[in-house]
Amino acid sequence: MKNFTFYNPTRIHFGKGQIAKLTTELPADARILMTYGGGSIMKNGVYEQVMKAVGNRHLVEFGGIEPNPRYETLMKAVEVVREQKLDYLLAVGGGSVVDGTKFIAAAVDYQGDPWDFCTRGVQSKSALPIGVVLTLAATGSEMNAGGVITREEFKSKRAFGNPLVFPRFSVLDPETTFSLPPRQVANGIVDAFVHTTEQYLTFPAEAPLQDRQAEGILATLIEEGSKAMEQNPDYDNRATLMWSATQALNGLIGMGVPHDWATHMIGHELTALHGLDHAVTLAIVWPGVMRVMKEEKRSKLLQFAERVWEIAEGSEDERIEKGIALTDDFFRSLEMKTRLSEHQIGSASIDLIVSRLENSGMKKLGERGTITPEKVKEILTERL
Amino acid sequence: MKNFTFYNPTRIHFGKGQIAKLTTELPADARILMTYGGGSIMKNGVYEQVMKAVGNRHLVEFGGIEPNPRYETLMKAVEVVREQKLDYLLAVGGGSVVDGTKFIAAAVDYQGDPWDFCTRGVQSKSALPIGVVLTLAATGSEMNAGGVITREEFKSKRAFGNPLVFPRFSVLDPETTFSLPPRQVANGIVDAFVHTTEQYLTFPAEAPLQDRQAEGILATLIEEGSKAMEQNPDYDNRATLMWSATQALNGLIGMGVPHDWATHMIGHELTALHGLDHAVTLAIVWPGVMRVMKEEKRSKLLQFAERVWEIAEGSEDERIEKGIALTDDFFRSLEMKTRLSEHQIGSASIDLIVSRLENSGMKKLGERGTITPEKVKEILTERL
Repeated sequence: MKNFTFYNPTRIHFGKGQIAKLTTELPADARILMTYGGGSIMKNGVYEQVMKAVGNRHLVEFGGIEPNPRYETLMKAVEVVREQKLDYLLAVGGGSVVDGTKFIAAAVDYQGDPWDFCTRGVQSKSALPIGVVLTLAATGSEMNAGGVITREEFKSKRAFGNPLVFPRFSVLDPETTFSLPPRQVANGIVDAFVHTTEQYLTFPAEAPLQDRQAEGILATLIEEGSKAMEQNPDYDNRATLMWSATQALNGLIGMGVPHDWATHMIGHELTALHGLDHAVTLAIVWPGVMRVMKEEKRSKLLQFAERVWEIAEGSEDERIEKGIALTDDFFRSLEMKTRLSEHQIGSASIDLIVSRLENSGMKKLGERGTITPEKVKEILTERL
Repeated sequence: MKNFTFYNPTRIHFGKGQIAKLTTELPADARILMTYGGGSIMKNGVYEQVMKAVGNRHLVEFGGIEPNPRYETLMKAVEVVREQKLDYLLAVGGGSVVDGTKFIAAAVDYQGDPWDFCTRGVQSKSALPIGVVLTLAATGSEMNAGGVITREEFKSKRAFGNPLVFPRFSVLDPETTFSLPPRQVANGIVDAFVHTTEQYLTFPAEAPLQDRQAEGILATLIEEGSKAMEQNPDYDNRATLMWSATQALNGLIGMGVPHDWATHMIGHELTALHGLDHAVTLAIVWPGVMRVMKEEKRSKLLQFAERVWEIAEGSEDERIEKGIALTDDFFRSLEMKTRLSEHQIGSASIDLIVSRLENSGMKKLGERGTITPEKVKEILTERL
């Protein structure tokens, strides 16, 4: 096991009716910017619950944060905060709203161009406090210190991190997800699944507890994921999916072990170029990464097949392939199209992605840095 | 799943050489009380590492905190802190030292008798900051906000909790455990195991992720526990045991699910009366609780047998009994004597324990409050 530092100070209020906790969590004299997305919170009762709990505190609304939140939009919010001297951010939405709000929090007092956070790893030295009301289980952003931002003018999608942007608290009420369209529920399941595998399907690192923690999340997502698509919203099912997504990316399972993240890096390019949902890109790219990197990941792919998919029969290669194929089937059971051609994306796009990754310096992806541009081409070609 | 609030702000520095992090974690002007136990840190190099990292900060040593830390001893430390106006506590040791240090931290500014924390659930409104250098993997105290204190004059062992006593940071260097006698390593494994089952072996609560997280810890402890006794200290083995013990009681697996804790409550009486090691009492009591409460725990005992012990054959009752018997065997493989008679404890003691529990108001133990004094008698009689 490698050395690590684990720190996660976000307070989670989980369950029915917990939005009321805003009343005690928000400072009485907070001057709040409430950020949200496309306005679904106006239709599903979340807005009313938030307003009731916020009471007569000073609150300014900032809606319209997109999926894959845009730098351009967020900088407008930064201006509002600066002009109106607001001092607390309340993100009400899914991972994009939370990610975007973290960017705003860190940008407000930063002197340069905050895009530096994403391209040069700059960490601003202060950030406004953030509270979250989560309405979509997927990214884990509600309990971590990172985010992913898209700069439209460059068609560039980049991650940033800063310990100062851990939310002070996050409210996770599974009932807020009842009104989601199935596509978004499915996106969340795939996102959490691939977050987990990025920290697990690498090489053995003498970390058997972290392995079992990751396998527990994967098995749970498979079991509960299929139920989520079968039925009308069930509270316990949505609660388990929500908590699983948080656990998949709150840092815990990734402590002391190698990380991959190539599926994400390649997927980000597909979103930036073609506007595909983040999770859809993961479902496309993941089987390709596993097949092309099979030798390097052999030991963990066998463990994954055995423990997560309970595959006991067949040669090593057969078991590995069956584990990958069952995962692809699982994604497809969530109504994901996992082939590029199903999204009308062809080999010209593959060449473009490869050259974009090269130009951004991402020539050595994966847990060993062996996913070169040639390998990316092979991976995406497998997914045509 | 039940509603819950999760909050755990302790920063963990895990791995070889991490004691050096004290240099940056401790405030430069801290006036420190360093607490420790019987003095093993003087022999295994931990003391030197701590002193080097503390540098020229003001530090007062307070040794001699016992296993099952005593109120009487801890109140002496409280006096030292008050008299010398110390402002930071550094616990260097195992769970007893950490528990005792939490008690000191909360007691220093408390106006009444701090024993109120244990008997009346009083929480003091302030506490000194605490840092920890852990030298024994067992109790999880390094990453939670509770402790257990023994008041010698009453032969009474009681728990307390207060969010203010979360350690600010804990250093977990597995190498500090290399010099432990096998008995203490075994104690730690059993302690972590039973912490996990107290939060898992209850009744199904629609919390499949928490179940799998608990099962992951149990399976890991079984796998790594037997290795720990077989061989000379192995870094990765000790690292996994250390991190498993922390995960067993940092709150996570207990979120949203019922808790039992009867094994602990009964075990505390055995320690208070007969001075048995805490873990030894758990190894004695646990099989009795499981057998006597079999009907109420049936569903989870079957799941435990299947998932943790991989028992697939036999009737329900046979599988349950096999799961319990294999666990008893596992404890015994760690050189624990799991029968009262092996410790020269007989039925007179059982009657005394039952009446003591009755007199302390603990008449309804277990996840449903159905472990009555009669049941406790039955449980302990099964363990003669």
